[in-house]
Order: sequence, then structure tokens, then C-alpha cells
Amino acid sequence: MAKKPNKLKARLPRGFVDRSAEDIRATDEMIGKIRGVYEQYGFDPVETPAFEYTDCLGKFLPDTDRPNAGVFSVQDEDEQWMSLRYDLTAPLARHVSENINEIQLPYRTYRAGWVFRNEKPGPGRFRQFMQFDADTVGAPGVQADAEMCMMMADTMEALGIPRGDYVIRVNNRKVLDGVLEAIGLGGEEHEGRRLTVLRAIDKLDKFGIEGVKLLLGAGRKDESGDFTKGAELDAAAIEQIVGFVSGTGSLENEGMTELNTMAGIFEACGYGEDRIKIDPSVVRGLEYYTGCVFEAELLFDVTNEKGDVVQFGSVGGGGRYDGLVKRFTGRDVPATGFSIGVSRLMTALKNLGKLGKADVVAPVLVTVMDGDVAALGRYQKMVQDLRQAGIRAEMYQGNWKKFGNQLKYADRRNCPVAIIQGSDEREAGEIQVKDLIEGKRLSEEITDNITWRASRPAQITVKETDLVATVKSILDGQADDRQRASEA
Amino acid sequence: MAKKPNKLKARLPRGFVDRSAEDIRATDEMIGKIRGVYEQYGFDPVETPAFEYTDCLGKFLPDTDRPNAGVFSVQDEDEQWMSLRYDLTAPLARHVSENINEIQLPYRTYRAGWVFRNEKPGPGRFRQFMQFDADTVGAPGVQADAEMCMMMADTMEALGIPRGDYVIRVNNRKVLDGVLEAIGLGGEEHEGRRLTVLRAIDKLDKFGIEGVKLLLGAGRKDESGDFTKGAELDAAAIEQIVGFVSGTGSLENEGMTELNTMAGIFEACGYGEDRIKIDPSVVRGLEYYTGCVFEAELLFDVTNEKGDVVQFGSVGGGGRYDGLVKRFTGRDVPATGFSIGVSRLMTALKNLGKLGKADVVAPVLVTVMDGDVAALGRYQKMVQDLRQAGIRAEMYQGNWKKFGNQLKYADRRNCPVAIIQGSDEREAGEIQVKDLIEGKRLSEEITDNITWRASRPAQITVKETDLVATVKSILDGQADDRQRASEA
Repeated sequence: MAKKPNKLKARLPRGFVDRSAEDIRATDEMIGKIRGVYEQYGFDPVETPAFEYTDCLGKFLPDTDRPNAGVFSVQDEDEQWMSLRYDLTAPLARHVSENINEIQLPYRTYRAGWVFRNEKPGPGRFRQFMQFDADTVGAPGVQADAEMCMMMADTMEALGIPRGDYVIRVNNRKVLDGVLEAIGLGGEEHEGRRLTVLRAIDKLDKFGIEGVKLLLGAGRKDESGDFTKGAELDAAAIEQIVGFVSGTGSLENEGMTELNTMAGIFEACGYGEDRIKIDPSVVRGLEYYTGCVFEAELLFDVTNEKGDVVQFGSVGGGGRYDGLVKRFTGRDVPATGFSIGVSRLMTALKNLGKLGKADVVAPVLVTVMDGDVAALGRYQKMVQDLRQAGIRAEMYQGNWKKFGNQLKYADRRNCPVAIIQGSDEREAGEIQVKDLIEGKRLSEEITDNITWRASRPAQITVKETDLVATVKSILDGQADDRQRASEA
Repeated sequence: MAKKPNKLKARLPRGFVDRSAEDIRATDEMIGKIRGVYEQYGFDPVETPAFEYTDCLGKFLPDTDRPNAGVFSVQDEDEQWMSLRYDLTAPLARHVSENINEIQLPYRTYRAGWVFRNEKPGPGRFRQFMQFDADTVGAPGVQADAEMCMMMADTMEALGIPRGDYVIRVNNRKVLDGVLEAIGLGGEEHEGRRLTVLRAIDKLDKFGIEGVKLLLGAGRKDESGDFTKGAELDAAAIEQIVGFVSGTGSLENEGMTELNTMAGIFEACGYGEDRIKIDPSVVRGLEYYTGCVFEAELLFDVTNEKGDVVQFGSVGGGGRYDGLVKRFTGRDVPATGFSIGVSRLMTALKNLGKLGKADVVAPVLVTVMDGDVAALGRYQKMVQDLRQAGIRAEMYQGNWKKFGNQLKYADRRNCPVAIIQGSDEREAGEIQVKDLIEGKRLSEEITDNITWRASRPAQITVKETDLVATVKSILDGQADDRQRASEA
């Protein structure tokens, strides 16, 4: 019998991913720009930890009818259940409630953080993802909601999304509440069905009007055969809702008054309908919203996983949640806020070519020709000299005896320069400096738009004392070339 | 009977904390400086998610003899156990192993991230905390370990810790292995006891030589009465270890040769014993180290929770872990790396006054005197004009009817300027601009070192069209004052 190999399989749990250098740098760049807008608006950072007591989080998960099924929970030593946060809003409500006596209201804060959903993973659907939220707690008026919408619009533009390629769509739950009451779905006893109706409407841009009708009626089967139970409304009620959502219905109520106030503020501040638009089809599939709801949508076309060309769609949204703090304090603390889906927005920005331009140059490689203590000290000293001059650099740390591997490493890492010193050069007090970018260009005989300039030598031999100056001048030349190429 | 209030208690699970704006800004500043050093050294960011399969993490927790007791674990739908990572090293080994065919070795990466320990929380001991790691995977030689030590030293200096206030202490497990063999603790069957010995030695700076002797012998009772079982060595063996650790023993082996090579590199690169020091008492309480181990220690005095003056101590450390990737791949992939305890280092920097100097100015407050749509639009427009001019600003979003609350809010938030426009000013096309810093100074009759300059008026009335220019000039004046005060 063959011996079973005693090896562990390296694998990630489903729905979790590692992040590459490119992704991390792009996310950091994006988060920095968003943070800049929020700070300008007078918001300050505040963060909560990954865990909360399960009862503090509440059952406010979107898209799941099985509360707690969607969260990761563990029992603490004292038998209390704790859960990983599934969004950043419920923890903020806990934070404000716990510190309500110290906090000066209105409390204007932002935070970026990982959230966790214990759900079936799918394409673009992860069990850990990042949200970036901003909230004003202790703000009773719709002027706070209006500010949120303008901040979302400004954020889109700060990220380089051109006007016309995004829109902030705004609605008010109180408007829809009137419709729901009219079809007999008012009152606490219909809370569950109202939520089903909200989630159905929320799927308008995903499934179209016919899909929403199915979800308002008996239910809808998706392409994989999974059946989603509907709200089981009768045909007349469905028509009333669909009529309203598609903008053909009309209504006078508190929600409409609030929307009109917001529209007035948008107009006064110069935010036209090309940026922020009142739209009765926006509902947001979350139970806790009590007034204004809004969504940031990207309008440009992308090809989805099925090969269809579709609008990119929502990258974030939010609304007013006047009841979340009251759950704890028993006191009215009206609040409004929104959340951006960081990964999703990053995908959008990549599509638009607005990210990943961070020009991080790979390190200069000092190769190793000899492994005794004195030689290692010399090579490492060259590296430290380069670093102290502000140049990114490293000594080859693999097995130095295979010199070919060192140059292969430099090539695959895209190192700009390699330094070589064998015993002959050492005796002469010299080093070889290889311009690896120029070397690649020459060896591939690239006839690009920068060939008009005189070629640099791909390799030169200089005095050891000229190491830093020589490398600096090569890196400067390469930077000029990149600049010229980007302008061409 | 009194009705029980139906309120939920807002509270955090033990060992978890919220983070304030000040802490977040200080951490970001610190992480930015550390990242700068790592990038300069040629490292790139790579991150793993919070969860790993429990078997992939392995049982490498420090300071716990009950494996898995120290981690948070949940069972996935397919019944596999997943755990929240307790450090960043085990997940990196999984990541490298899983992608070993795509990764170019040596693989030089860094990452900052939250880790989780399911342990008894205590003062300064949290169940979620941040580590900042750097690793070189695929580096067989001690020159890679030497680089890590120099990078730690450079990091300390980049953070503003003066030379002399820190030291990187270096040892080699192979040196100690020789001692352990000499006292009969070689071989696989003594793995458990060897680890107990390592952890005992690792407590030297905490418990002193007598405490270590107890832990090497029968065991030690701490002040709370908790008893830690010892390694149960006999008196002769204890003397041999203590003698070695305190530097009176001597030995010739592979470990010593490696330490000598490292010392040669440090010398060649100009890192003297005031920065990096070979020290036989360093062991690191982790099982997986196979060679060089090192620790960054801060030498300045602080007062601990008991009121004793002590050296600040370790803020991070690491070493060589040649076996971690092999667990998965069956193939030798030697590696070395280190981890910085971000929160602990931040505490140290606060002690040194090296952090929290980020000069974030609170927003200008536009107060609200009237709440109709037109007025809200006008106030919000002023705010947007200020923001577009690069000035941090906000409209008061609380209940505007209590004007006193608006000024109290401005005061508690430390707003630099408040804008006021009542109906009289509105009709005249004017605004009142209050310099709140100057106002405070005048009202408190502060005779500080900037009173020599002519006082600014604490309040002026200007044309609406002069809003931005007036605010800008007041903010500039305040910035000059701060500058002058910091130079005085």
C-alpha cells in the first residue's frame, strides 16, 4: 500500500479571498479620496470592533428571511452570543447608545471596515467585504439627508467618475408607506409582508418590471431554478404598486413634502437632476429605514458574467434610520447615513480606467556573487546606501549560487536596475550597473514612440563610490521615459 | 408591579474596544511611516482574509497550552471548522503554499491587519488587535534575517524613537537547542517541555531571573494566585539554562556561526550595538521558530499599572520559520519575518510625544436661524461654497430652534469659525462671521505668548459675497498663531 502523504491542503474557506498588492494599493488610493470628501464635509473617523453581542446587532440583514442565518456567531465564555458585524450601521447605533452621555450631538462620523456575511458565496459575492460609511446621528431634519446625497455625488466626482456617468437617486419610505396602507398592508401585523414588498421593488433594476410583478405575486424562479417566494398580493394591489414605482401614480403626504424640501436644497446648491434625482422606484431592501432613502448608481455600460451589456448599477446607498438608537436608549435620536461598497466601487473604477495608476517602481536589485560574511556585508551596505538616498532597493535573498535565478527574479519583479559586483570588479573597486528597462527595450528592439531619443547604455561599469549617483540618474531617465510615453 | 422596560443594553463584548478619531488618525500616521520603510526595503503589500480553515492555521498560539482554546472558531455549512486568524504568519504560510506555482521567490511582502485571540482580556490585553508584519519567504540565508533586524531598527527611527531609546535584540534558536540537548531535552518526545522552557525564558524581562527559575522548576504562582505549571527541570539543568541565558555560558555550534555572520553584516552596514545587539536571553515564546529570533525593545521608562517604573519593553519581534510552508507543500521553503504590535507601539509613541500631532482643524459651522426650504438652501449653499474653496465646513444639523445649542456644539467641537445670518442680515445681504478661537481667547483674557500681536476682532459683519475670503483670512490668521505658539 502506498503511504498516504502527510500533507495539509492549503486552501481558503469559500467566499474569502486574498488581496494582491495592486488591489490593496488601488483600495488605499480610493479610500483616501473618499476620506478627503468626508473630512471636507466635517466628518471625523470613529470605528467599532468586528464583534458585537448578537442582540445588539439586531436582525437587519438584507435579503435573508432567516435572521441569524446570515451572520457568523460564537458563544462567549459567559454563554452570551457574539456575532461578527454584517454592516457598519448597527454597530454605530450601539456605539452611540453606549456613549450617549459623552457624545455631542449631532455626531458626524465615518468609518471604513470589513463586514461579514455567512451566506452562499457567488460570483462577485464574498463573505468578507469592505464598506465605507458616513453617518450623522442626532439630526432630525431632511437637510441632513440632503447633505448625504450631495456628499455621495461629490464622492463620485472626487473618484473621477464624470458627471453623467453617475446619479444619486432619492426617495422617501413615507411615500411608499402611503401606497402600502392604501392596499391594506399598514400596521405592525403586516411588517413581514411589507419587507417582502420592499425587497421586491428593490430588485427593479435587476429583474425588470415583470420580475418585480412576480415577486409581488406568487414568486419568482431564477435561472438556476431557485424559487423566491413572493408577497402574494392580488393583481389590483400589484398594479397599484407598480404604477407608483414606475412614476405614473401620485400622492400627497409627508414623504412628498420632505422630498420637495430636499429638492429645494439641491437646487439652491446647484445639484441638478443630472446628479441627484428624485425617483419613486428606490426603496432599499432594509427594514430599518424610516424616511429618506437614496442610492448611488453608475450609469455606464459593462458586460456582466452572462455576457449581457448592462448598466453598472448601485455602488452604495443609505437613508434615515430614526429607530436604531432608540432600541437601546428609549429616546428619539434621529439619524441618517450611507454606505459605499468598496470592492464593488473599485471594480467600477477599474472599468473606467480611474484606478491602479499608482506608479510604484519595483526595487533596485543588488545581486550576490559571493556568500562569505565580508561579501554579504558589502552587498548589503550598497543596498542600505541606496535606501538612505531614498531609492527602493534590496539584496537578492534567494539562493545566490544560481546567478540566472537572480536575473530571472529581477525580470519577473520588473526591477528597474540591477547591480553586479564579481571578484574582478571588487578588486578594481568597481560595480556593473544594468539598466533593465533599457536592456529589455533594446533586446526586444521595441520601436515605440520614445525611440527618437538616443538610447541609454543598457549596462555601464562605474566606481563603487558612484553607485548612488549612477542609479539615481538611470531611474530619472526611466521616469522621464514613462512621462513622455504617458503624454504621447 | 413596575413594568420592565423593554430596552436593550448597549454594550461591547469584553476585550473589544471602539476607536476614537484621535486613535485612528494616530494609527494611520504611524502605519504610513512604517509602510514607507517597508516599501523602501522593497516589500509589497499582500493581505489575507480574517478567516482560515482551522487546520491551516495550526496550533501556534503563544502562551496557551490549550490549542484552539485561544481562537474564535465556527463550523462552516460543510462542517469544516474555520477560525479567525490569531496572527498574520500562519495565514501567510497558507497563502504562499496555495499559490506556490505563481509566486516568484523570494517573496517579500508586508501587511497590517486585525488578529483575534479568544483569551481572558486584561489591562492592555485585547481580544482584537492590530499587527503589522513583513516577511521574506524563500530566503535560506541569515542575510535575510539580518535585513529584518535592520528594517526594524530603521522603522523605530522613522517613527521618531531616538537612538538609544530602542534596541533590536537578536538570538538564534539553534544556540539554545544545543543547551537543551545538553540537558537531555533533545528529540521529538520532548517538544512539549522544550516549549515550556522557551516560554519560561521568554518571561525574563517580565518576572526576572528568579521568576524564570520557578517556571523552569516546579512552577510559579502570580499575584492573583493563578499557578503556572513549570518545566520541572532539576536544579543542575536550571543552572545550566540560566547561566547560558544570562550570558555566562558559552557554546560553539551552527547557531553561533549564524549569529557571527549577522554581526558581520550589521557592522558593514553601520548598525552598532546601540541599535542591534546579540543577546542570548531572547527566545520568543513560539514553537515554530527554527533559527534566528529577534525582538524590538523600547528602553525608556514608563510607569506600569501597578505604579512601578519599568522599561517599556517589547513592541514586536520575529524570526526564522523554515517549517511553516513545508507543512503544506512538503517542500523546503525557508522564511523569516517579524510582527509589530501596532496598539502597543502606539502607546509607546504617545508616551514619547511622537504622535497625535496631526493638525486636523474642526469644520467651520454655518448656523441655522430659519428652517424653511429657501433658508435651508441658502445656508447649505454657503457650506458648499466653503467646501469648494477647500475649507472644511458644515451646516448645523441638530434641532436649529435652540440657537444656544448651536454655539455650544461649535464650542465643544472646537469649530474655528461660525457663520450667522438672521433675517436682518439676510435682507441686507450680509453675514456675521465669528472667530471662535479669538473669541475664546478674549473672553478668557488669556495672556499667552501671542498676545503681543494685535487682537483680531472676534466678530465681523461682511457682505455675503465675501464669505469665503473672510473665512479664509481668519483661518490663515489662526494657523499663523498656532505656528507661532509651537515655535515659542
